[in-house]
This record gives sequence, structure tokens and C-alpha cells, in this order.
Amino acid sequence: MQHPDLKKEFQVERIAFFSDAVFAIAITLLIIEIKVPEVHGERFSSAEIVLGLRVLIPKFIGFIVSFFVIALYWVNHHQIFKYVVHYSPKLVWTNLFLLFSIVLMPFSSAFYSDYWLSYSAVPLGFYVVNICLTGFMNTRLWYIISNPANKLSEGLDNPAFVAYCKTRSMIAPSVFLLSFLVSIFSMRIAYWCPGLIFIIMIILKKQYRKKHPELFAK
Amino acid sequence: MQHPDLKKEFQVERIAFFSDAVFAIAITLLIIEIKVPEVHGERFSSAEIVLGLRVLIPKFIGFIVSFFVIALYWVNHHQIFKYVVHYSPKLVWTNLFLLFSIVLMPFSSAFYSDYWLSYSAVPLGFYVVNICLTGFMNTRLWYIISNPANKLSEGLDNPAFVAYCKTRSMIAPSVFLLSFLVSIFSMRIAYWCPGLIFIIMIILKKQYRKKHPELFAK
Amino acid sequence: MQHPDLKKEFQVERIAFFSDAVFAIAITLLIIEIKVPEVHGERFSSAEIVLGLRVLIPKFIGFIVSFFVIALYWVNHHQIFKYVVHYSPKLVWTNLFLLFSIVLMPFSSAFYSDYWLSYSAVPLGFYVVNICLTGFMNTRLWYIISNPANKLSEGLDNPAFVAYCKTRSMIAPSVFLLSFLVSIFSMRIAYWCPGLIFIIMIILKKQYRKKHPELFAK
Amino acid sequence: MQHPDLKKEFQVERIAFFSDAVFAIAITLLIIEIKVPEVHGERFSSAEIVLGLRVLIPKFIGFIVSFFVIALYWVNHHQIFKYVVHYSPKLVWTNLFLLFSIVLMPFSSAFYSDYWLSYSAVPLGFYVVNICLTGFMNTRLWYIISNPANKLSEGLDNPAFVAYCKTRSMIAPSVFLLSFLVSIFSMRIAYWCPGLIFIIMIILKKQYRKKHPELFAK
Repeated sequence: MQHPDLKKEFQVERIAFFSDAVFAIAITLLIIEIKVPEVHGERFSSAEIVLGLRVLIPKFIGFIVSFFVIALYWVNHHQIFKYVVHYSPKLVWTNLFLLFSIVLMPFSSAFYSDYWLSYSAVPLGFYVVNICLTGFMNTRLWYIISNPANKLSEGLDNPAFVAYCKTRSMIAPSVFLLSFLVSIFSMRIAYWCPGLIFIIMIILKKQYRKKHPELFAK
Repeated sequence: MQHPDLKKEFQVERIAFFSDAVFAIAITLLIIEIKVPEVHGERFSSAEIVLGLRVLIPKFIGFIVSFFVIALYWVNHHQIFKYVVHYSPKLVWTNLFLLFSIVLMPFSSAFYSDYWLSYSAVPLGFYVVNICLTGFMNTRLWYIISNPANKLSEGLDNPAFVAYCKTRSMIAPSVFLLSFLVSIFSMRIAYWCPGLIFIIMIILKKQYRKKHPELFAK
Repeated sequence: MQHPDLKKEFQVERIAFFSDAVFAIAITLLIIEIKVPEVHGERFSSAEIVLGLRVLIPKFIGFIVSFFVIALYWVNHHQIFKYVVHYSPKLVWTNLFLLFSIVLMPFSSAFYSDYWLSYSAVPLGFYVVNICLTGFMNTRLWYIISNPANKLSEGLDNPAFVAYCKTRSMIAPSVFLLSFLVSIFSMRIAYWCPGLIFIIMIILKKQYRKKHPELFAK
Repeated sequence: MQHPDLKKEFQVERIAFFSDAVFAIAITLLIIEIKVPEVHGERFSSAEIVLGLRVLIPKFIGFIVSFFVIALYWVNHHQIFKYVVHYSPKLVWTNLFLLFSIVLMPFSSAFYSDYWLSYSAVPLGFYVVNICLTGFMNTRLWYIISNPANKLSEGLDNPAFVAYCKTRSMIAPSVFLLSFLVSIFSMRIAYWCPGLIFIIMIILKKQYRKKHPELFAK
């Protein structure tokens, strides 16, 4: 009675919507980690409340960074599923591993923010490993859906575009991995490494634009 | 095999559904901030439980106000996406900034409620900045989708209607900003300012109804 | 480019999906209120863990009751939206008031469970008021969508069926209100009142089946 | 004005999406139970942070196991709803019982992880009962939708395939039940029992492949 194509489309949509819900909850749970500053006693002056807020600054930075990291991966996920028309157990489980990594983000983010002042490599390492895991799962999704043998996608016929997407998806986790390695020698330099992401992305885009102008013609 | 228009429609829907999930979680997390009053000892008289509840009154007021502020912005989001048929990175990221602001609401709301009695301008200011950020992101969404050059919407051909929507979306954040400025001089007057929102909205609607009776004919 | 009917359908769906997300979060947040029993010291015998669990029994009863109360209202919401094909601000806002009441459930439920042993009428009253608010908002939704003047629904042409739905939706909140009034005189009797819901529902169904056999032919 | 088939399809989709939201929240709430280790004092050496993390190891194992148990049941749910085209109160309520069991998972998981070291059978028993309840509700869903008398599904015409699905859905809860019974005699052996799930699944698949090669032709 119902068209089988419609049903398959609905099954693909459910994977996307389930992922959306997990992304949405993980991104919203980040705020739970930030508790309202407690000012004890009857002293309720503005100065003391501002002091209470100041303690939260590392947590707020962590919240903002993690919000946009998760947002970025959601945007990526949104881009990937633009091409998905079928699904396979491999796609479903790689997607679940990606979600596992996303669910871990509120913890890594809080862990990193709480030990901001310790200058220890452990919380930073944990956070970086988490971001890398998310990044490589994301890259794996690109590999799975773009493989013509899997027959999972439509509209990914241009090999240059697929190569561009795959390479771009590897930049963020690679730079984070690099910044962690650098941090063992110097924390100061490590903090500036993530800036490389944007520089490399621009260079990559320019290179592809030169070689394949049709890709960015739009 | 699948119609490209259907896929684009699904991609637009995903943006709306992801936003819905974030709105829904933020609106539900508000209740987490209200803990059941703890009555110590074996004394379990109704009078003491009522006393425990009374302490929660500012939190409940904060919960109710924030619930309806988020609900209002969801209704706005629902109205905006009525016209969206395409999407662009600018739309996606402005929407994510709006969601960032919504996710911050449970914190600002709890912060404001907890320091209700302090009469300090800091928590009120924080809350107002949060509401203004949400409001202006909402206005920006109207600007982005109504711009014919972006080709993102359908059904927004009447410039008078678009102007009405844009102006209306700026009322709430502007009045909240005003009420914060007033609060520096007098808290008492500031508390009554939000009432202006409804008065200005009615005046605006009347003006537009006079000039463009066809807009409200329906 | 896109069919306006499809867009309106999508707008109605968004109301349903946003509501689903709120229902889903409220129903899942119930479990957050139940903390794993803490057994202090090095004593980790099974007997002591069981003792720790026993303290949680009122919380578990509260969790189960509230889970199925929210589930029941979700099923109702699901039934109502079966007929909705248009939407109006009145429908949207009544729905948001219903969701407000649902969001309050995890608090009322925890409040009631925590003071189970106090035999105080305050937490019970709070819980009952919450359930009644949900119930009457639900009834109001039936009134709004079944009103032919609102032109919001399709398939509700049989006035006997509409009357049956409206009456049925009022049974649960009415009985809970009654049980609260009874509780002022006798807690013992009040606890058995909710059982009336099922009895009245069966009587109502039988009456309608006798008068309108075509309603239940199916 | 709207096609009744489309509306029914939407009603079935809502059941799936509501379930998705509950699955997504339960799977994400698991991380809330893991708190960032608190290192008291000014001592912030890496060694002490690692020590703080080590205490969390049982919690992390619990998190990972529970994440993939819930993920597995989501995949199952996804497979079941592939065939569902109609719905009945029985389907809706069995699904809600399944969700009840899923919602309980974050508690059982935390309870089990916290008493990992106690070697008590109570938390393990609680966890196993939870997994079994989920498993048998899942099996019940298969029975309900595959029953031709219920007219709820399409594409389940091959009785061998249905039998295979039903049998497979019973393996996990049965093995967990067995592992609990074994745990009364020996905890050590019990921990290895879940490994049986994969062995039995492979044997089952081989048997069916031999008898019904057309099932796995794909």
C-alpha cells in the first residue's frame, strides 16, 4: 500500500533525526556543567557576584568552544546526509560511533575546563583524543558513503569533489593531534595551533579552485 | 532515483528539527534548576513544606518567564521557517548562533532567579543580554531569508509584510535593552518596562493595518 | 517551486515533533531524580545495598506513575494530531501551555515522592493540580480542533465521536481533582480514587457503544 | 484536502520519532552520571589527575556497555519500524513499555557501575532484569507487527525470515538471564557469558543461511 522507496527514504531520515536528537542533547547538556556561582552569607553586592562569575570564565570558554565544535560536526553531518539515499549496517554503526564520540564531548569539555589552570597535559589530551575520534569517524562516514561499491549515495559522482570533502574532513582532527604533540614541548605554542585549521582550509580551497574551477562555480 | 527537490526539502526540514530538539531540551532543562525543597529532620508538617516551597517562588517566576520567552522564540522560528525553501551556510550558522543563545537561557534564568533578592544589576544584565542576543539573531534570520538576493524563501514577496515582520522582531530585544538601561537608575520602574512590548506591538499592528489593510485581511 | 500544501503540512508536523521532543525529555528526566543509593564506608554487602534500594521505593513508584501519566498524555496528543491539518496561534499556544504542564511533571513527581511519608496534602495537591492542568489543556485542545469554525481538523465530522472524545478527556483530571478533595478528609480513601478512572471510562464507552454502535464498529 | 494515507504514515512516523527522542536522551544522559574527578587542594599534578580518572574506570566501562546496549536496541527498533505501516493501541503501548525500559537504563547502568567492586549480585541483577525487560519488549514488538491478523506491517510475508528475526531478538536477553543465574555460583564465569551472544548469533545465522539461502541473498 505504501511505496517502498518512501519507506527507505523514511528509514534514512530516521538515522538523520536520531543523530540530530543526540547532537542537540549533547550541545545543550554542555550548559548543565556551568553552575550558578554561589555567594555565601548575606553579602549580595554586585562586586562579589562579578567575582563569582569570574571563576566561571574557563568554563564559559570551554562551553563556547565545545558548542561550536559540536555545531561544526552537526553541519558536517548535515552535509554528508545530503547525499545519502540508502543505508547499510556499516553506515549505521559508524554513525553510532560518531554519536558515541559526540556524547562524550560534555564530559571532556568539563574535564578540560575544570583543569584549565593545572597546565596538565592529561585533560587537554583527553579533549584532543575526543575531538580526533569525532573527526576520524566523520572522515570514515565520507569514505563509506562516497564509495560507489556501497551504493549509498547520489550526487557524489565527481571524484575531485569527493577527494576535496575527504581531505577537508581530516584537517581539524589532524591539527588538534598536532597541537597535542606540540603541547608536550610547549603549552604556549600549542594554544595557537588550532588557528592553523582555518589557514590550511583556505589553502586547500584555493588549490582545488585552481585545479577544478567547476567545483566552486555553484 | 530520488527527486533532488525532495532531498533539499529534507535538508531544510533537518535544520528545523535540529532546532526544535535544541529548543525542546532548553525549555525542559529549566525545570532541572528547581530542586525539591529539603525539609531536614523528622518534622514533616504541611506548614514547613509550604515554607520550603515559598523559598522557590523566585525560581518558579524565573522558570515561567523563561519558559514563555523560549516558547515565544520557538513560535517565531516556526513562523520564519514557514517561508524557507533553500538553505545557505549563512542561514545555518545564524541559526546555530540563535540556538547558542537559547542554550544559554537555562543558565541566565537560574542566575537571575538565584540573585533576585540581591537587587544587583549583574544577573539582570546577564539575562537581558541573553534575551537581546536571541532577539537580534532572530531579526537577523528575518533579514537573511527575506533578502531576495539570497533566494532562500518563498511567499515573502510583499515588502510591507517583510518590513512588519522585521520591525516586530526587534521590539522585544529593544524593550529589554531599554529596561536594563532604566534599571541603572531605578529598579522599580525597570520591572514594568517589559509591559511596553505588548503596547508597542498593538500600536505597530494598528499602524500597519491602516496602511496595508490587505496584510491582515486573511 | 514547493507545493504550499506540503509546506503547511510540514508546519503542522513541526508542532507535533517539537511536542514529541518535549514529551520525550520530560519522560526521560524523571529518572534523573532517582540517584543511585550511596552506601558509605567499606561495607558493601548485598543486604545493605538492598536496604539502600528500599529507600528509593517511593521514588520508583512516583517514577512509574509519572512515566505512564506522561505516556498517556502523549498517546492523547498523538490521537488529537491525527485530525489536525491546519494550525492557528490559539492551537500553538494551547499546545505550549500543555507542554508547560508536562515540563513541570518531573518536579511535581519528585516533590510528591520525596514527601510520600509526610502524609501532607501539599505535595499531593501540587501533583494533582499539575495533572489537572495537563488534563484540561488536553480537553481544550479537543475543543479547539473539533470546532468547525476554526477549520483546523479533518475527519471529526461525527458530533457523537467528538462529544465522546471531549468527555473522555475530562475523566482523568476530574477524578484526580475529586481524589484531592477526598484526601482532605481521608488520605486512605483518596489513594483508591484514581481507580475510578477506569471504571468511568468503561461505563462511558458502553453508553456510547449502545447509542452510537457505528462509532466502535471499525 | 490531505490524503488519509499520508496522515496515517505521519502518525506511524511520529511513534518512531518520539521513540528516537527517548532513545537519544537516554543514551546521552549516561554521560551525566560521570562527574569530572575532583582534585582537592592546590595540588594539580598530572599524576593526581590520572589517579582521579582511574576511579572513573568502572563508570566508563558501564557507560560504554550501556551506550552500545541502547544503540543495539535502537538499531533493532529501526529494523522493526522498517516494516510498520499501520499502528494499534497494542503496538503503541508495547512500544511505550520498551521505552520505559530504555529510560531506566541510565539508572541501572550507574547503579551497576557504582557497586562494581562490591561483587554483590543485587546491582548486576537489577541491570540484567532491565536488559531482559528491554529484550523481551523488543521480541514482543516483533510478534505484534509480524502477526498477519494485526495488519500492521508490510514486507514480512516470508515466515522463515520472521522466525529468524524473532529468534534472534531473544538471544541477548536469554544470555543475560543465563549470565545472572551463573553469577549466583561464580561471578568470574558470569562475566564471560555475554560473549555467548555473538557465538549463538553466528550459529543461528549459519543455520538459517543453510536452510533458507534466499534470505541472505540480498
